[in-house]
Amino acid sequence: MQSWALSSVLVTGANRGLGLELVHQLARAERPPRYLLAGCRDPQSTRAQDLMNLAKSFSNIKVLKLDVDDFGSIQECAAQAEKILENNGLNLLINNAGASYSGALNEITPESMMNSYRTNVVGPMMLTKVLLPTLQKAACLNDEFKAAVINMSSIMASLELFNDKSGTAYAYRASKTALNMVTKCLANELKPHGIISVSLHPGWVQTDMGGEKAPLTKEESVRGILQVVSKLSAKDNGSFLDWKGQHLPW
Amino acid sequence: MQSWALSSVLVTGANRGLGLELVHQLARAERPPRYLLAGCRDPQSTRAQDLMNLAKSFSNIKVLKLDVDDFGSIQECAAQAEKILENNGLNLLINNAGASYSGALNEITPESMMNSYRTNVVGPMMLTKVLLPTLQKAACLNDEFKAAVINMSSIMASLELFNDKSGTAYAYRASKTALNMVTKCLANELKPHGIISVSLHPGWVQTDMGGEKAPLTKEESVRGILQVVSKLSAKDNGSFLDWKGQHLPW
Repeated sequence: MQSWALSSVLVTGANRGLGLELVHQLARAERPPRYLLAGCRDPQSTRAQDLMNLAKSFSNIKVLKLDVDDFGSIQECAAQAEKILENNGLNLLINNAGASYSGALNEITPESMMNSYRTNVVGPMMLTKVLLPTLQKAACLNDEFKAAVINMSSIMASLELFNDKSGTAYAYRASKTALNMVTKCLANELKPHGIISVSLHPGWVQTDMGGEKAPLTKEESVRGILQVVSKLSAKDNGSFLDWKGQHLPW
Repeated sequence: MQSWALSSVLVTGANRGLGLELVHQLARAERPPRYLLAGCRDPQSTRAQDLMNLAKSFSNIKVLKLDVDDFGSIQECAAQAEKILENNGLNLLINNAGASYSGALNEITPESMMNSYRTNVVGPMMLTKVLLPTLQKAACLNDEFKAAVINMSSIMASLELFNDKSGTAYAYRASKTALNMVTKCLANELKPHGIISVSLHPGWVQTDMGGEKAPLTKEESVRGILQVVSKLSAKDNGSFLDWKGQHLPW
């Protein structure tokens, strides 16, 4: 997978933060994807206005309605993607949609734990499942073109890097650690299909989720992420990388 | 915490498998706990018959109704435990109740993912939360007596030990990996209260969950587990140990 051409990409949670910036930079790339699918929960809402404006300027951007919390919506989105892609398959799925949950033990509820898992783990996993035939198509079309699944994880998912000063955001941490295990399982199961799976830590970024104190702009983070993605190779399958391409311990 | 006396213990999922064997061996120990609380989903059902019979022979065993999938049941169980323990507090909580889920990507459903997380992660975590005042009481009563939370995890939760030959039981693996992160968070948050938290891999055991091919009998596994538990010290806080006391990589 040496400097593979990203001919078809789906980014989830594309209406803001890193998702919107990913679509933005992919659209303006030197060799932009022929198909740039942008999933967002409610394309008609004001929260999707920036994405809709971007889509007006780039004919390759197609906005898809996608609520990763809802399996029906995931299935509909996959069907729509397949229709748009015709026989071309999808060679990059970026599972970027996610939710942040803070809170120590006294604040945590069964609901926040379950909601976090649904959004951050079950959604990405089910979307990968339903898109598998489409990913397989891209992986098979041309030996040079493989397919990849990027799960947006976090350094907060690292069990090894956890230390006394780490805050205890149970719901968020537990879900992202579980997502890393899903990456491992996908890496193992999809490898024979020519599809690699990677967990990616985008850095601590100035977004709604990261807050204003974050040291990294979303432009910097996404430039790094796309650099890392463009250089992915089979040996990266099942790894946990940061936006600079460095390996993180589990 | 040098050879601490286990004066009050709560074991969840105590009606069969490792849970029942834990209660069995604790009841027959040289210095049995004064309070041996055994949580099980339905004490009246035939599946709890062995536990109920055991409880008839040992007056320190109290069977508590506990469905870890149901937060209301968790709260009721904790209230009942507190009542039985009077002012003595709980010095060992063994979060043993859990469910096994196999299945590759084509078999997985949102429901199996969510159910696995509810039982294997949210249940143990919420039980620990509601029992916290009772655990704190035990930790404070006497400097020699500390309290501990044991989360029954699995070697299948290890991201580092995952290899090409590992089966992809997504729902089970992801939930147990998340449970390990909960252990880490608890270890960090409860340390100032004198409560340590550990993830424990019981080995591959001949139980309904482990199947007949497993190399270890439940008697051997539980002997090992209780040996490990009796030797726990502050330095073990936040670690992942197996039934022989060996450290497992995350």
